[in-house]
Amino acid sequence: MSADRLSGVSEKRKPESVLLHPLGAAAAPEQELLCIFGTGDLGRSLGQRLLQSGYRVVYGSRRPHSCGPLPQGAQATSHEAAAQSAGLVFICIHRGHYDFLESLAPQLKGKVLVDVSNNLKKNIYPEANAEYLQRLIPGAHVVKAFNTLSAWALQNGPSDANRQVHLCGNSAEAKQAVAEVATKLGLSVLDKGCLSAARELEDFPLQLFPEWRLPLRVAVGLTAFFFFFLLIRDVIYAYVDQRKDISFRIMVSLANKVFPIVSLIMLCLCYLPGVMAAYLQLYRGTKYRRFPDWLDRWMLCRKQLGLIALGFAFLHVFYTLIIPIRYYVRFRIAASTISQVRENITSVFDNTTAWRVDSYYSVGILGFGLFLLLGITSLPSVSNALSWREFSFIQSKLGYLTVFFCTLHTYLYGWNRFLKPSSYKWYTPPGYLLCLAVASLLIVLKLLLLLPCVDRSLIRIRQGWERKDPEDSNTKALLA
Amino acid sequence: MSADRLSGVSEKRKPESVLLHPLGAAAAPEQELLCIFGTGDLGRSLGQRLLQSGYRVVYGSRRPHSCGPLPQGAQATSHEAAAQSAGLVFICIHRGHYDFLESLAPQLKGKVLVDVSNNLKKNIYPEANAEYLQRLIPGAHVVKAFNTLSAWALQNGPSDANRQVHLCGNSAEAKQAVAEVATKLGLSVLDKGCLSAARELEDFPLQLFPEWRLPLRVAVGLTAFFFFFLLIRDVIYAYVDQRKDISFRIMVSLANKVFPIVSLIMLCLCYLPGVMAAYLQLYRGTKYRRFPDWLDRWMLCRKQLGLIALGFAFLHVFYTLIIPIRYYVRFRIAASTISQVRENITSVFDNTTAWRVDSYYSVGILGFGLFLLLGITSLPSVSNALSWREFSFIQSKLGYLTVFFCTLHTYLYGWNRFLKPSSYKWYTPPGYLLCLAVASLLIVLKLLLLLPCVDRSLIRIRQGWERKDPEDSNTKALLA
Amino acid sequence: MSADRLSGVSEKRKPESVLLHPLGAAAAPEQELLCIFGTGDLGRSLGQRLLQSGYRVVYGSRRPHSCGPLPQGAQATSHEAAAQSAGLVFICIHRGHYDFLESLAPQLKGKVLVDVSNNLKKNIYPEANAEYLQRLIPGAHVVKAFNTLSAWALQNGPSDANRQVHLCGNSAEAKQAVAEVATKLGLSVLDKGCLSAARELEDFPLQLFPEWRLPLRVAVGLTAFFFFFLLIRDVIYAYVDQRKDISFRIMVSLANKVFPIVSLIMLCLCYLPGVMAAYLQLYRGTKYRRFPDWLDRWMLCRKQLGLIALGFAFLHVFYTLIIPIRYYVRFRIAASTISQVRENITSVFDNTTAWRVDSYYSVGILGFGLFLLLGITSLPSVSNALSWREFSFIQSKLGYLTVFFCTLHTYLYGWNRFLKPSSYKWYTPPGYLLCLAVASLLIVLKLLLLLPCVDRSLIRIRQGWERKDPEDSNTKALLA
Repeated sequence: MSADRLSGVSEKRKPESVLLHPLGAAAAPEQELLCIFGTGDLGRSLGQRLLQSGYRVVYGSRRPHSCGPLPQGAQATSHEAAAQSAGLVFICIHRGHYDFLESLAPQLKGKVLVDVSNNLKKNIYPEANAEYLQRLIPGAHVVKAFNTLSAWALQNGPSDANRQVHLCGNSAEAKQAVAEVATKLGLSVLDKGCLSAARELEDFPLQLFPEWRLPLRVAVGLTAFFFFFLLIRDVIYAYVDQRKDISFRIMVSLANKVFPIVSLIMLCLCYLPGVMAAYLQLYRGTKYRRFPDWLDRWMLCRKQLGLIALGFAFLHVFYTLIIPIRYYVRFRIAASTISQVRENITSVFDNTTAWRVDSYYSVGILGFGLFLLLGITSLPSVSNALSWREFSFIQSKLGYLTVFFCTLHTYLYGWNRFLKPSSYKWYTPPGYLLCLAVASLLIVLKLLLLLPCVDRSLIRIRQGWERKDPEDSNTKALLA
Repeated sequence: MSADRLSGVSEKRKPESVLLHPLGAAAAPEQELLCIFGTGDLGRSLGQRLLQSGYRVVYGSRRPHSCGPLPQGAQATSHEAAAQSAGLVFICIHRGHYDFLESLAPQLKGKVLVDVSNNLKKNIYPEANAEYLQRLIPGAHVVKAFNTLSAWALQNGPSDANRQVHLCGNSAEAKQAVAEVATKLGLSVLDKGCLSAARELEDFPLQLFPEWRLPLRVAVGLTAFFFFFLLIRDVIYAYVDQRKDISFRIMVSLANKVFPIVSLIMLCLCYLPGVMAAYLQLYRGTKYRRFPDWLDRWMLCRKQLGLIALGFAFLHVFYTLIIPIRYYVRFRIAASTISQVRENITSVFDNTTAWRVDSYYSVGILGFGLFLLLGITSLPSVSNALSWREFSFIQSKLGYLTVFFCTLHTYLYGWNRFLKPSSYKWYTPPGYLLCLAVASLLIVLKLLLLLPCVDRSLIRIRQGWERKDPEDSNTKALLA
Repeated sequence: MSADRLSGVSEKRKPESVLLHPLGAAAAPEQELLCIFGTGDLGRSLGQRLLQSGYRVVYGSRRPHSCGPLPQGAQATSHEAAAQSAGLVFICIHRGHYDFLESLAPQLKGKVLVDVSNNLKKNIYPEANAEYLQRLIPGAHVVKAFNTLSAWALQNGPSDANRQVHLCGNSAEAKQAVAEVATKLGLSVLDKGCLSAARELEDFPLQLFPEWRLPLRVAVGLTAFFFFFLLIRDVIYAYVDQRKDISFRIMVSLANKVFPIVSLIMLCLCYLPGVMAAYLQLYRGTKYRRFPDWLDRWMLCRKQLGLIALGFAFLHVFYTLIIPIRYYVRFRIAASTISQVRENITSVFDNTTAWRVDSYYSVGILGFGLFLLLGITSLPSVSNALSWREFSFIQSKLGYLTVFFCTLHTYLYGWNRFLKPSSYKWYTPPGYLLCLAVASLLIVLKLLLLLPCVDRSLIRIRQGWERKDPEDSNTKALLA
């Protein structure tokens, strides 16, 4: 926060200073001159930041005499003069106005053009803005950069969120020049390759968790379904059947039934597509045919399904741990103790129940611990440090172990409750039975794949072997 | 751990072998020769490591015959001879002695000079060591590198902590040459741009959580204040008023009041500066004027404020979860049950209390879950993978949702307790009311900003629009 | 999922189209032609992916007319013709068949050869495959790349796990060319330096947590030992001595004794080698002599030891938190309350016990919190963002604080129990005493190192000072 940092736009002195007049004391002779085309918000913010970092800045404008307030210390001139004075030109104008740049091709030849533009929507133009710019001015070296930064970062310097400048371009020297400017602005640079990556860079700021949408929708749908299902079975049934108002149970007891059910189902949904793909490959006898689109899309969101399942598991854990400090639970325990005293009952310790309940909790904790481990290894920095063999060991071996533990946990929860007719209120099964069905199906399907003969076929197919269908060869022979 | 790894400094044979005599069997002809200036600890450690990685090493020294023990296999000679024999020279001498290098300018011309120096304090020299070196020997290619590594990593090979070599320099070829040496030493390279980044690299090893200091001080101050405030209100008051020694409550009950209060206040402090900045922009009618310094500094430590708040929330959660296994709580519950039996009281189940307590826990868990999510997305590798739009969605939308949940949690905790005169011991308000005041203020200020008319103005200002103050233009007109 | 994505291998049309005939409508003239040597699974998968990304692909094969099904749109020709037609050649053949490439040296001169090969085991060849390839064809520019990707990623596009292409090579231009192909395939590139890094890249896919093996074995060994030790002391002793079957306690009570013991011991094992290294340096009077191999290996797995200890601590925390919802605990508490009522006992509140139990929990939570902090800072992205000074502050200062808190937690757990003879069933000490011994030893050793005189010597040694042993100098004098 040095005192000589320039503070804002000088509204009073600017309009007079239009042409390249000699700069004041602040401009040491070795300072590099950069050019900015466009005097809109983006151009002004960027210019101010460049001036603060010790560059000289000249704006190219259609109306250099009336282009509004500019950052203190910058000059404005015509596009032609500005382009000729600097080796590096920031294009801060809308793509819709790029076409006039074609006329500047002679002045821009050999210059580095930095395309910082973004679009408001995806796929409104047939090609990326930067590629369009390169096509308009083939003699210039176009570099796509800075567009993934927030306006805040461009104007106020790097924030914690985003100090990475993604850049791409066909000329290594041009990229190096832009990288140096970015470095001076306190940003770090990530080279994304040649200009064909510009489309990806331009789409990046527009995305809002595209790969999370489907899994989130599934999660919301499942949660809503099980919430209402259990609301009817538990709260409304109690009210209708026994005139008892137990609506307070919605907040914790009901929620703590919905969360584990949704969590287990989503965990299974995360492993089901892999199993289905294996069966499909076995059926087709080849790995070279593409999966149907729905399976492809499902497989691409497995990580997100798993992480959402982990979130629900986390909620289940904490909703369980607060059980003993709930008013309702304390009241019920005290009431039961008091009634035992008053009615002089001596309850007998049941070893089987002790085993079952302790195993139930123990298996649950181990399952949650493994689940957390899966979550941690899906952090980008951790999974990048793993070799492919390590990653697949964790996500597959440990993943199925997690499924197994969580399913066992649910079985131990249910125990023999499913035999009691009272569990089937209004002829509906208890909620946990529904998720057990999905989980058990997944485990059986996976176990079948692990049978030696099936496993061997699958491995051969995945190594490139293809089953020659006799009929198929007949057909071919006929066609040939 | 190959057997031929050189083990340590040969104290006995070295002093005789001074000039460039032919090396022993270990030196295959294609091994590259590197030069090190300086035979101090750093030079020796680096030399040993280079020898272990298969390089030949020659030391440049003022007194090559008496420069003390060198790593086995290295030679020492005069600076001039050493510089001429190798293309890459590591400068392992203190900056204070750099000036004599000027006389070696002819020998060092075109060579790659690696500046590995660090200073003991920031800002003791007007320019970075590497820039000073470049100025002394303009014909050489100076690369700043290796200085961010620990001595341990340089001597013993990469440890988990730090295998990244940050380097910067003006010559891409020189950087490439240094990067190859670093790669051979088993380190990974991070290019930080041109030599002007050297200052940043030299300051890096000196920093000890600079951006955490202010937030930590705030946290310690708040914790101390609320600890003593509650100590007086709870423990000392009970002792003075009822002669009851409840000092054991300091360890858990009191701590579990301090932690949530400090956590909520610090969470609010993390969002307050953003709201204040918005009001300032609305008031000024422009975004182009810099914020006051205190606000700037406050905004820069928002992430740290939030993470410390998360730490306190974590402590609060676990201090809450151990409540039922505390001796004191078990004793009190048993005593209450026993007294109910003895005095033949039958307490009635209170539906409202059940709703309130369950909601209180439920909202708290959801708030903590969201808070954890915010914490996870602030991990560098996660936030780097997010687009700016995604990051601001999480940190702003989900952030305010977290504030809202945590505030609601506190309201549900307080309930109607604030109406009871007994809450105001010694005319002081209960601690939770103080943090509720801060949180409620933040929420109201934020809600005002969301009013359509205010929101619209703010968006326009942030898009670059400026309010033309009529008086201001008058003044300008007069001045013109 | 555009409709024009090619779906699979065309088995019917391929065998006829062998030579470089003009491509169909899909091939715009500016598409780059790449060459693949080898028509096995890897070559086919890679070719299909390149075709999908808009490249033209020609296969080099020994029997171009009968090389089996190829991806639709690819051609096959002789190695010579294929090599001449493209500037970039992917070598998708086994290393065992590389030797025939020597005859193609004239055609491959100046070409970029991408070595994607992996071996089935480490160290079966004296040099890396890519280095061998470079030696066979010195005129070509060999780049090692793509071998760390999974076959899935190569065939189906980047998955979450692994979109990083590690590459190395001696020619910067060749690496740039390969990087551009990788970028077009949607992968990100990590330059690992010159070709001598190829060995590391080839070993990478083979590794399965090499640095975790020793710590995991230690953990399993300790867990098994303490499990059987406590099984005998607790369950079997109770059965033999009192004919009581308390085997249900294995699931939670016993596990919750094993976990904290193993956790504390492993945490100490993580800090012991550092202390031992310091004593060794003090004894030797120099830091320039290498540590014994076992100490070196121990120091290299400190991070893993610590993380496994954290895992056990995590299990301990959750096994503790579920205590109050266990059937056994609820039964015992109710039974104790009922017996108090029936026998008309009024137990007295014990202030010391309240202090002790609350401190025990409080210190445990703080220790766990610090432990988690250590774990978080060992995430790669977090530790990369820390300077060496910051990292060592956290891992050393905060690390010892964690050890201290956890040890204090165990002391508070034990309290005066070790004085009771009944704790020494069958003359064995309680389990917690064993881990306390290790932890106390570590703390005492560390405290001794912090004594000013010892500390000063150590710092001097670590700054490069060496103790001149008088006898040693005598010996030297005699030898000279």
